[in-house]
Amino acid sequence: MVRVKVPDVVVRRLVDYLRVLKDRGASPDEYISSAELAALAGVNAAQVRKDLALFGEFGKQGVGYRVLQLRKELVEILGAGEPMSVCIFGIGELGTALAKYLTTRHKFDREYPFLVKALFDVNPRKVGTTVSGIRVSAVTEVGELVKAQDIKVGIITVPSEAAQEVCDMAVRSGIQAFLNFAPVKLRVPEGIFVKYQDVTSDLQELTFFLRQRTEG
Amino acid sequence: MVRVKVPDVVVRRLVDYLRVLKDRGASPDEYISSAELAALAGVNAAQVRKDLALFGEFGKQGVGYRVLQLRKELVEILGAGEPMSVCIFGIGELGTALAKYLTTRHKFDREYPFLVKALFDVNPRKVGTTVSGIRVSAVTEVGELVKAQDIKVGIITVPSEAAQEVCDMAVRSGIQAFLNFAPVKLRVPEGIFVKYQDVTSDLQELTFFLRQRTEG
Repeated sequence: MVRVKVPDVVVRRLVDYLRVLKDRGASPDEYISSAELAALAGVNAAQVRKDLALFGEFGKQGVGYRVLQLRKELVEILGAGEPMSVCIFGIGELGTALAKYLTTRHKFDREYPFLVKALFDVNPRKVGTTVSGIRVSAVTEVGELVKAQDIKVGIITVPSEAAQEVCDMAVRSGIQAFLNFAPVKLRVPEGIFVKYQDVTSDLQELTFFLRQRTEG
Repeated sequence: MVRVKVPDVVVRRLVDYLRVLKDRGASPDEYISSAELAALAGVNAAQVRKDLALFGEFGKQGVGYRVLQLRKELVEILGAGEPMSVCIFGIGELGTALAKYLTTRHKFDREYPFLVKALFDVNPRKVGTTVSGIRVSAVTEVGELVKAQDIKVGIITVPSEAAQEVCDMAVRSGIQAFLNFAPVKLRVPEGIFVKYQDVTSDLQELTFFLRQRTEG
């Protein structure tokens, strides 16, 4: 793998390219132009060429990229070929939906790398029940389970006021990256990654564009 | 409002600034430095100054921004002060979680602009039930309800294979922007906005950074 520091926005686009290529499918020798890939991913063709050129010369002038080879390269660049164990904190409606979604994806897509290995909740009535065949554990068991299952990523869907405490416990247990659905900023030590998911921010962006158009 | 074409990434950051300022709170005459705002939003101070300068001179050299005034300006820039009606397609676990989250937010935060006005599902056993006091309607009622309630934004949480059909019906009914949780690309007419939400892409980004660090 070529060793370059890749900006966040480029990583996001690489992830998008891989997703649309998987959705699209292809016969063994099929090529895709940068224009078609760009259209599928919602960017422009020059952007596609520039992003991919960061990692070497995949494309062929005037022909484009071999679809299956490009997919393989993207999987390798993104490290998307190796399984990654995740856990979910907060097994309410959102946590349950995510657990089901991720385990179903994994069952039907052999290349799908995310494995849900543990679920955590504070509610004693939920502890011991199962979702998609995975036992719900007490948050106090996090240290033990994260080590035993080699879990690196935690998805947080607990209420805002509980998110920081859960995050702190998870960090002490060895979790190194979070996808946070609680609408609060988390304080984490240097080197721990947090990605925020907030439906309100998404809606706000959409309405900005709607209103700008109405006024424009 | 100053009329400038604002890039998507800037809009996203403005939304983040507003969110962290609301979380932070402030006394009437309190100032915040670009450095503090940057730290809260996870960007650098120069970026904050550059983004805000697009809309005029809010800051005071060496002092920063008046928190409450900056919040007011951001609300105005983003059009976040006026209520916006949304509907949800697909009242499974994710749709239910979103309906509850958005209606609860609205109840406890008077400034919260998003109002869930309608819920849609194809399952006849769900139609007629209520979630957070809102009736679940059949998807065939979308035309009527979207017009009656002046709904502009649709949240899609239906299974992938149903997403395009739901989107087409919604567009014909007058919905102009979508937040799409189904992991498929939607085809929409020019001028219709789609924002994608995909937990898999988020996890992929996180694991890229984790693996890059391990190998680095």
